[in-house]
Amino acid sequence: MKTEDGKTGFRLITSTSINTGMAGVSPEKLIETDLKEGQEIKLIASGEEGVTRIIRRKMKKRTLTETEIETFISALDYGILTNSHIAAFGTAIEINGMHEKEITAVAESIIRHSKIMTHKGKEMVVDKHSIGGIAGNRITPLMIPIISSAGFKIPKVSTRAITSPAGTVDALEVVCPMDLTFEEALDVVDQTGACMVNGETVGLGAVMDKFLSVVKQIKVDPKEMMIASILAKKKAAGSQFVMIDLPTGRGSKLPLREDARRLAYDFSSIGNKLGLKVECIISPGDKPIGNMIGPALEMTEVLRILQGERGSLSLVRKALSMSGLILEGCGAANRGEGYEIASQILSSGKAFNKFKEIIEAQGGDPSVSWDSIPVAPYSHIIKAERSDIVYTLDSENIGIMARAAGAPHDKMAGVILHVDRGDEIKKGDPIIEIRAHSEGKLSDAIAIMQTTPPITLERSVLEHITGMQS
Amino acid sequence: MKTEDGKTGFRLITSTSINTGMAGVSPEKLIETDLKEGQEIKLIASGEEGVTRIIRRKMKKRTLTETEIETFISALDYGILTNSHIAAFGTAIEINGMHEKEITAVAESIIRHSKIMTHKGKEMVVDKHSIGGIAGNRITPLMIPIISSAGFKIPKVSTRAITSPAGTVDALEVVCPMDLTFEEALDVVDQTGACMVNGETVGLGAVMDKFLSVVKQIKVDPKEMMIASILAKKKAAGSQFVMIDLPTGRGSKLPLREDARRLAYDFSSIGNKLGLKVECIISPGDKPIGNMIGPALEMTEVLRILQGERGSLSLVRKALSMSGLILEGCGAANRGEGYEIASQILSSGKAFNKFKEIIEAQGGDPSVSWDSIPVAPYSHIIKAERSDIVYTLDSENIGIMARAAGAPHDKMAGVILHVDRGDEIKKGDPIIEIRAHSEGKLSDAIAIMQTTPPITLERSVLEHITGMQS
Repeated sequence: MKTEDGKTGFRLITSTSINTGMAGVSPEKLIETDLKEGQEIKLIASGEEGVTRIIRRKMKKRTLTETEIETFISALDYGILTNSHIAAFGTAIEINGMHEKEITAVAESIIRHSKIMTHKGKEMVVDKHSIGGIAGNRITPLMIPIISSAGFKIPKVSTRAITSPAGTVDALEVVCPMDLTFEEALDVVDQTGACMVNGETVGLGAVMDKFLSVVKQIKVDPKEMMIASILAKKKAAGSQFVMIDLPTGRGSKLPLREDARRLAYDFSSIGNKLGLKVECIISPGDKPIGNMIGPALEMTEVLRILQGERGSLSLVRKALSMSGLILEGCGAANRGEGYEIASQILSSGKAFNKFKEIIEAQGGDPSVSWDSIPVAPYSHIIKAERSDIVYTLDSENIGIMARAAGAPHDKMAGVILHVDRGDEIKKGDPIIEIRAHSEGKLSDAIAIMQTTPPITLERSVLEHITGMQS
Repeated sequence: MKTEDGKTGFRLITSTSINTGMAGVSPEKLIETDLKEGQEIKLIASGEEGVTRIIRRKMKKRTLTETEIETFISALDYGILTNSHIAAFGTAIEINGMHEKEITAVAESIIRHSKIMTHKGKEMVVDKHSIGGIAGNRITPLMIPIISSAGFKIPKVSTRAITSPAGTVDALEVVCPMDLTFEEALDVVDQTGACMVNGETVGLGAVMDKFLSVVKQIKVDPKEMMIASILAKKKAAGSQFVMIDLPTGRGSKLPLREDARRLAYDFSSIGNKLGLKVECIISPGDKPIGNMIGPALEMTEVLRILQGERGSLSLVRKALSMSGLILEGCGAANRGEGYEIASQILSSGKAFNKFKEIIEAQGGDPSVSWDSIPVAPYSHIIKAERSDIVYTLDSENIGIMARAAGAPHDKMAGVILHVDRGDEIKKGDPIIEIRAHSEGKLSDAIAIMQTTPPITLERSVLEHITGMQS
């Protein structure tokens, strides 16, 4: 039996006997509910026989069936799970993992419970995704207009910062509204070929939002659920080709190259099962991408690059490399020629024009320019204590400093890096500039230099071990 | 530095510099709080550096230090943990376990955070505990007056039913108030040498209540936390000797005898580290103890036994065996003679007099008698469909039937067993009597016969396997 929304369900009738295809409930139990004769109802297994049993099976490292996974995702969707159930399931997956078949089933289930974007026209629909947390990695607002200018549809939904000083939503919000509804976002794509919006308000794969908000509390992010959630959202957005960016190295979410590679295979293989062509790049995640960290500061750097001004070379190169590989993967460029085509789209000003077109369609001001973005009033410049070589720029600690300065809540706060890894610096040279909305936040950010320094100078001896640790 | 309650803490002062023994916080952060100059404050590690890091370490199967365990229990005590944190920690322990040292540290930490009972007089303080869930296992109200009559103090705190049709608190509440405060319970012990009260209102080891209520939602009950919690509560009640009852067999919490034995060693060994002498019995848990199931019905059977009337032999024997072993373990009887001494205390009427003394001290009516306990008005008797031998009485399914009839919420509802395992019965003989407060509940309970039958008759062939399962 199907209810109006196409899901399997029941209709309530009163009867003195129970036949095949019917489920019975005692009159007393019925009185406790608000159900009325003829009303559509759904049955969800509960208690030991339902979701709790499924969670317990995962605690025992069993492989869950498609039906069990659908039951869990349905229960999430219908809001009948407590935070305790969700945290327990997240913890069990974190410890015991999931097989590829299970991850695929989770993704398929998320898609079944999601709104689906259907696009007009014959353009191929593509997308990109970066595994997060690298300070300043603001490649999305550079890539979307490039890819879109090359003739592809790209319905990009992004997120706010979780632990970093700015997410794509926090940064782009400086120049246009990001909290578009599903219908509004689809209109922008119809009109311009692309959108750059907040995934939370668009609601693709929204059934996972509750799950992710709970596991965030316990600082757990099982890669299996991340893979399923990302791919399901891309599929629900109508994408056919997805390029995934996996930053690796010290301080990133994937410290070992090997882990990044394994994740890339999982993404490709599970994407394939969902009917998505997925390619991945492994990129450097051991230093920040871009020199300006914080929502408005990052937007300033992005606009400088779009407008042909000087900007961080690592940021420009990464955006062009990844865009080029997408063009190649989708047949819009021969192998090895994508970078150059992307570069031409950027330098010709086409990308900037497309960017303005998209933000105008989203309700932003198309006369935006890098020199019109404001910056927080209080500033402090940290200077080199000696002449030396910059040995590390720690993305995570730079993030901590920018957050101490007020980002992402204070849009105009953050840090500006005046040096790059390997630079030779002289005593007294400016190395980091902090911008904040108050003296207090400024001194909070300065204090970070003592506890989790974002920058270290070269030393010949890293550690000196003289004996056993007690 | 010690605050008034003896815990390590700080006092808030404003200062322009930070010296040893001081912890600093920026003026802006301070304004966000309600703290005032001179106020006592406690510092709890938070975020990644605090409890979340500890939970993640257990997810990775690390052994937690005493300090980490104290931090977790403190955070529970101060109410700063979300249900998600607690569920994640419970799940991680369920999957990865804890070493004896960790369990001991949990128990010690619970004791540090608990109220402690100090008893007058020189009598040895003893206690008993049954691992729960066996239908009708109402030995506590028989054992307490016996042990107490033998000259021991026994400050017994019990619980309500969680998944069973009646807990000790639900049953005894039929004859006296159970929700006594810590001070009231201690007064009753001073006055009569014993108490039989609700552990929840007395509040010994109360720091674990929040933990247990959360893991209950996900039907998880890590044995490590159970051991720590039970022993800590006994220690906080001032006990020196504890006898623990571990029912084993199909349908119990410990299906394998081997698991019960391992648990017994854990209880004894950890008890020893806490300065408690612990002995355990492994008892049959594959059938109900007692013939009457439900709060008032169980109280009726207990009173019949105390008053010298006929009652379930398995119930009488178990209460006397366990009481006897306590008397032997505490030196009040030679080995092998405890049962007889306990039996004399019961048959002489001393135990019933002591029972009345205790319930009067708790605010109950000492003129109570088995034939004055009311029973629910609606009844149905299930009769034997054929002449045969009773093959199994399933404790769990009897519990499900009694709960369907309304127990423990409807105090007077439940089931009465008219047969025991191995009995020869004739077609038409009464086998189970259901008592309920409404026709609806009665038919809910009758329906249990179809889905999870509490009784099965003997069959020569249990299963017939003809090939591989698909």
